[in-house]
Amino acid sequence: MTRKILMHVGPETLDYDVLLAGVKGDVGFTSKEFVDAMSYSLKFLRKLMGADESYQPFIIPGGGTSAMESVTSLLKRGDKVLVVTNGVFGNRWLDIFSRYPLEVKAIRAKAGYYVKPEEVEEEVKKGIYTMLTLTHVETSTGVREPVKEVIDRVRDYVDLIVVDGVSSVGAEEVKAKDWKVDVYLTASQKAIGAPPGAGLLVLSQKALKMLSDDSVAGYYLNLKNWIGVMQAMESGKASYFSTPPVHLIFMIKRAFEMIEAEGLENRIKRHELVASAIRRGIEAMGLEIVAKTPEAYSNTVTGVMLKRANPAEVLSLSISEGIEFAPGVHPDLAGKYFRIGHMGWVNMNDVISAIAVLERVLKRLGEPIKLGEGVRAVQELLAS
Amino acid sequence: MTRKILMHVGPETLDYDVLLAGVKGDVGFTSKEFVDAMSYSLKFLRKLMGADESYQPFIIPGGGTSAMESVTSLLKRGDKVLVVTNGVFGNRWLDIFSRYPLEVKAIRAKAGYYVKPEEVEEEVKKGIYTMLTLTHVETSTGVREPVKEVIDRVRDYVDLIVVDGVSSVGAEEVKAKDWKVDVYLTASQKAIGAPPGAGLLVLSQKALKMLSDDSVAGYYLNLKNWIGVMQAMESGKASYFSTPPVHLIFMIKRAFEMIEAEGLENRIKRHELVASAIRRGIEAMGLEIVAKTPEAYSNTVTGVMLKRANPAEVLSLSISEGIEFAPGVHPDLAGKYFRIGHMGWVNMNDVISAIAVLERVLKRLGEPIKLGEGVRAVQELLAS
Amino acid sequence: MTRKILMHVGPETLDYDVLLAGVKGDVGFTSKEFVDAMSYSLKFLRKLMGADESYQPFIIPGGGTSAMESVTSLLKRGDKVLVVTNGVFGNRWLDIFSRYPLEVKAIRAKAGYYVKPEEVEEEVKKGIYTMLTLTHVETSTGVREPVKEVIDRVRDYVDLIVVDGVSSVGAEEVKAKDWKVDVYLTASQKAIGAPPGAGLLVLSQKALKMLSDDSVAGYYLNLKNWIGVMQAMESGKASYFSTPPVHLIFMIKRAFEMIEAEGLENRIKRHELVASAIRRGIEAMGLEIVAKTPEAYSNTVTGVMLKRANPAEVLSLSISEGIEFAPGVHPDLAGKYFRIGHMGWVNMNDVISAIAVLERVLKRLGEPIKLGEGVRAVQELLAS
Amino acid sequence: MTRKILMHVGPETLDYDVLLAGVKGDVGFTSKEFVDAMSYSLKFLRKLMGADESYQPFIIPGGGTSAMESVTSLLKRGDKVLVVTNGVFGNRWLDIFSRYPLEVKAIRAKAGYYVKPEEVEEEVKKGIYTMLTLTHVETSTGVREPVKEVIDRVRDYVDLIVVDGVSSVGAEEVKAKDWKVDVYLTASQKAIGAPPGAGLLVLSQKALKMLSDDSVAGYYLNLKNWIGVMQAMESGKASYFSTPPVHLIFMIKRAFEMIEAEGLENRIKRHELVASAIRRGIEAMGLEIVAKTPEAYSNTVTGVMLKRANPAEVLSLSISEGIEFAPGVHPDLAGKYFRIGHMGWVNMNDVISAIAVLERVLKRLGEPIKLGEGVRAVQELLAS
Repeated sequence: MTRKILMHVGPETLDYDVLLAGVKGDVGFTSKEFVDAMSYSLKFLRKLMGADESYQPFIIPGGGTSAMESVTSLLKRGDKVLVVTNGVFGNRWLDIFSRYPLEVKAIRAKAGYYVKPEEVEEEVKKGIYTMLTLTHVETSTGVREPVKEVIDRVRDYVDLIVVDGVSSVGAEEVKAKDWKVDVYLTASQKAIGAPPGAGLLVLSQKALKMLSDDSVAGYYLNLKNWIGVMQAMESGKASYFSTPPVHLIFMIKRAFEMIEAEGLENRIKRHELVASAIRRGIEAMGLEIVAKTPEAYSNTVTGVMLKRANPAEVLSLSISEGIEFAPGVHPDLAGKYFRIGHMGWVNMNDVISAIAVLERVLKRLGEPIKLGEGVRAVQELLAS
Repeated sequence: MTRKILMHVGPETLDYDVLLAGVKGDVGFTSKEFVDAMSYSLKFLRKLMGADESYQPFIIPGGGTSAMESVTSLLKRGDKVLVVTNGVFGNRWLDIFSRYPLEVKAIRAKAGYYVKPEEVEEEVKKGIYTMLTLTHVETSTGVREPVKEVIDRVRDYVDLIVVDGVSSVGAEEVKAKDWKVDVYLTASQKAIGAPPGAGLLVLSQKALKMLSDDSVAGYYLNLKNWIGVMQAMESGKASYFSTPPVHLIFMIKRAFEMIEAEGLENRIKRHELVASAIRRGIEAMGLEIVAKTPEAYSNTVTGVMLKRANPAEVLSLSISEGIEFAPGVHPDLAGKYFRIGHMGWVNMNDVISAIAVLERVLKRLGEPIKLGEGVRAVQELLAS
Repeated sequence: MTRKILMHVGPETLDYDVLLAGVKGDVGFTSKEFVDAMSYSLKFLRKLMGADESYQPFIIPGGGTSAMESVTSLLKRGDKVLVVTNGVFGNRWLDIFSRYPLEVKAIRAKAGYYVKPEEVEEEVKKGIYTMLTLTHVETSTGVREPVKEVIDRVRDYVDLIVVDGVSSVGAEEVKAKDWKVDVYLTASQKAIGAPPGAGLLVLSQKALKMLSDDSVAGYYLNLKNWIGVMQAMESGKASYFSTPPVHLIFMIKRAFEMIEAEGLENRIKRHELVASAIRRGIEAMGLEIVAKTPEAYSNTVTGVMLKRANPAEVLSLSISEGIEFAPGVHPDLAGKYFRIGHMGWVNMNDVISAIAVLERVLKRLGEPIKLGEGVRAVQELLAS
Repeated sequence: MTRKILMHVGPETLDYDVLLAGVKGDVGFTSKEFVDAMSYSLKFLRKLMGADESYQPFIIPGGGTSAMESVTSLLKRGDKVLVVTNGVFGNRWLDIFSRYPLEVKAIRAKAGYYVKPEEVEEEVKKGIYTMLTLTHVETSTGVREPVKEVIDRVRDYVDLIVVDGVSSVGAEEVKAKDWKVDVYLTASQKAIGAPPGAGLLVLSQKALKMLSDDSVAGYYLNLKNWIGVMQAMESGKASYFSTPPVHLIFMIKRAFEMIEAEGLENRIKRHELVASAIRRGIEAMGLEIVAKTPEAYSNTVTGVMLKRANPAEVLSLSISEGIEFAPGVHPDLAGKYFRIGHMGWVNMNDVISAIAVLERVLKRLGEPIKLGEGVRAVQELLAS
């Protein structure tokens, strides 16, 4: 096989204009060129998050996990946190918080489901929580939490609401301001469509006020240490706390320019159409999707249940057909599913290729597939 | 649409490893690095052409047309040349030779057909021709001439046999030595899979002996002026006649390394499979192919006849669906067809994408298409 | 000015082969290609650090500061740490540790000096310290600590010795094993010559044994969470804790291949010669170096004291002459100096350019410079 | 040595922004993106040549030699051509014309000299010449012909005046319109600062009128075949004669944008200053320049006479010091000189590096060099 299509869960197939934007051999982190790129990127991040000027944007070396951990900058010893978890990455909040002197409680959904807004409401109404964390799209299963509905019910009963938008920002509707989210975060390699290496966050004024020397946070992931740098660079002034990922920032900037050119609404619609077409193809060939109900479907990740084939073999044969999918990682579904990532620069040609490869590979592996029905269904959806 | 697929007739979708191989800011044309790249490329060109050490390879700035014209280096005033032409690029030989003091005769096929070997035999047997030119694959229609059969019949009756392999070398069986071809030529942007900018040729010993100061050739395209440079560089010595396209040579070298890694036979098989799948998809959706008989089908270019749709609109809508095809250029079929190029780094995902896009676009333009039948047929072929 | 030379303190002028190695649009973090790159890089990191198989290498998203903070993975509540600090980045250890429940003591040197080995010995002999941290080259002043001498005196009296090699690894002699260092760390954008975005560490067996769930470390920078991934990938198996900086890893791998090709000893000698030539040029034009004694000189950073000129103006004018230097950041020398970074891919042409630009710029700014004496001195050194 | 500086005579050190502009994997030659790039480049070429709208620009695959040969499109059998030659590339006109049925006469200068305007005047006044060719800067010696002065004397006595501006356009004052030049030509890899692979020309209305089917020209280099394509693409319409070097055109476009940003006058001044500094350095170290008089000095190429050292050894040692110069190629000075190319993106740091490397290399090879005097002289010139 020649050129490949990467439909993993991040990085996914990258646009070369984005990659080439980072090929710079002589740009220092105090240079005007870099500071301008950072300034543009910070400003655009607000738009991407549905935030306004009252929100403070951050772009910090690391990724989704480090961005999640940085919210410890808002917490003090003994604070109570409620974690709503639909899978592996919801559970990651628990792993993070377990390293800190906090009281943490979890509400959990089974694999393929999401925690219902009323369950969250019931718990939050106890009024004891400083922070509630939600996972917009659970990357391990592709299940989307109805973030807005949850918040509508609980906003008045908890100080800070944090949303992990790692698999949603840039591909799902995200309205930090309208939904009154205090921290919305994502990572560079997901729906933004840049290489991995940075976590991106916006903080509300309420969140910013919680930053203090008394927080439980360490040093590097302590947002208090980064805020001055972010404000200086946004206003065009060089500044330093720890060396920023200069080349990656140029790639993020280019990705943001391309998002701006496409139009954020168009981009979300593209992801919706891609996701619908993927699911239509999967179902038409006779397979089930991990997410149990249409409300739980996401625009970015689709888990596919297998009847007979071994997921590792599906991935391996698909690679030899030119497409790389992602393994399933939810322990409760171990060995029973794999994931299709469809984020960033994904398009309809990727969809038809993915469904075609899966038809052929799954048939070869003994899965009871209707060859040709998946691609036909995609065509009918797209032509309608 | 995000990322695109280029199925024009050259350049076609390029592998970025090839493109990046040319990004060198400090390499001069007398440097060891460049001479080594040239040496490797010249040696590999022989293999690609099915030539042995007795053949002299040339890589010359320009393209297919300049490579064609360079065979005037083998001709003297008054020489008789027979041109076998199946379309626009066969006719190009006539246009070229018309600028020189030569006697030229043409045997022509109708659009979609090729000149039969016996017709060529009949004419060549007159025994008056210094040179016979054949077009292996006629790019304007995608028709393949049975080069070996023709030569088997005429080899003894003509001094020099020249084959334009522009749309064949790297994708069709090419055996310069076994078929006793004197000049086989191609261009960098076709099935080799590099950017445009160079013509590539091999010359037999018999051809080399014809190089002389008395040829009708000019200066820049006179192979006599280039032969010393080619021989010096192949043997690792810097040399100069006119500045070589340094960066392109590094890209050609990388493409050649990738061809070597794939294996030339595998590469030809890949093109065969791709071409079969394209035709199967086209026919299953209810359309006709320009080449009139299976023997005339090529591995690299497929002309598609339209019943109702305007070709320009097909191309334009396809671009907005992420694939760029090529217009039809044969004057006898003007407005009735377009071309799909499938050369170089093309793969099965490109094929399914192309057929899927065409189904949707053609249906939208009122062509009597069976939506879903093209992609299904491709799937059945590939799964068999 | 056209092309620029970047002599900041990281990133510095990058080789484009390194940058281009990261331009990959279809490589996922579980792909063989990535795992192989990671495996090679981890193995080579040991060599770079003068470590053997008993050491465990780590490459972690972030940078120097995050790598420093990750040593909290080895510490438990109440542990005593001794920090030897010669400037801003020595002090950074204090800032980091202040966020954790540890007892920290510092020994400090004045700007331009380093803490004497005997001072460290005296304190360490108290026998109360779990960890001693040293800064091999203090980036804020360019002062080198005689790490080996210090350790020779204290090795038996402290459990863990940690060396911040951010401005030394790849350019100074580093012998983790021979010197019995437990943690040697650096960052990708310094003398390794890759873009910023990763911290790199090796841990001794003794250090590895200290990793525990009871450490004071958080989650993301907790080496206990990364060790399994590092071991899996080194042995060729895909693994996941948090998405690695895929593209940067390919750049680091390329930088490592180039270091291997140059030879680590040759590389260190190159940095020595470059540093000597820089200092010779600076002194010959009549200026002083921040590091007060030849033993304190480093191979990577040279601070330059100014008599009359404003450092910000020096930097700004130098940029317009095509070279970007770094500002001084040591608070005790504020406004009195700037820094020349000479790491990674720096060469003699950069040196002569730097000295020439400084001669012209400083003369223009009224500094009592002997024009032509700096470059002449460099020439004499290099020709000798 | 790490990174290199290329001071050959084309390609020279390239700016990576130019190179990266060509890294495009999906752009066909009929795409809007390509046609726009071509349109911009053709329009800008007029400005670069000092031409107005009455001139027709051409960008044609090949290089300087092919561009030279393309002027045969303006000549008919038996036409008389006068060639003014100051060296190897002036003689190239003779080699080219010798392949055509033309009457050619040459006026020659000795190596290091140029043909005096009055000599040209005397010959041209015979009134028998259809075409006069001049070489603005003779690349083999670095000698500049006073083109304007020559033309002022002869304009009325010859039909067509052709200037080879291969080593001048983009670095010397060029005024096609004001000087009444009919054909001004150059190549992409010289002072324009792009890779090799294209010849660029502008033709006056008078020249355009001479294009005819009766010219002596062949096919590929026949400008009559290209003019329609150039006009179509300039006006934004896709067109085809022979596949253009798509990727190179994007690089030329980027180079042109950077020339526009720098300002053509500033660019010429930069080349003047660079050339002056090079010569000052060479002379201060005690060597002579090939061009015999200041009026003959060029902004782009400096030939350096050697007293004892072998030029091949100078080049070879310089490469190991990180700079690649060009060999001498004028047969009358064989073994006695080498050339420094200083075109395109060259800057003052390159100059000081070049002089420094030469001081050290030449001293090592026994040349009676005053070490340190070359660089000092450059500094004095630049600081004045």
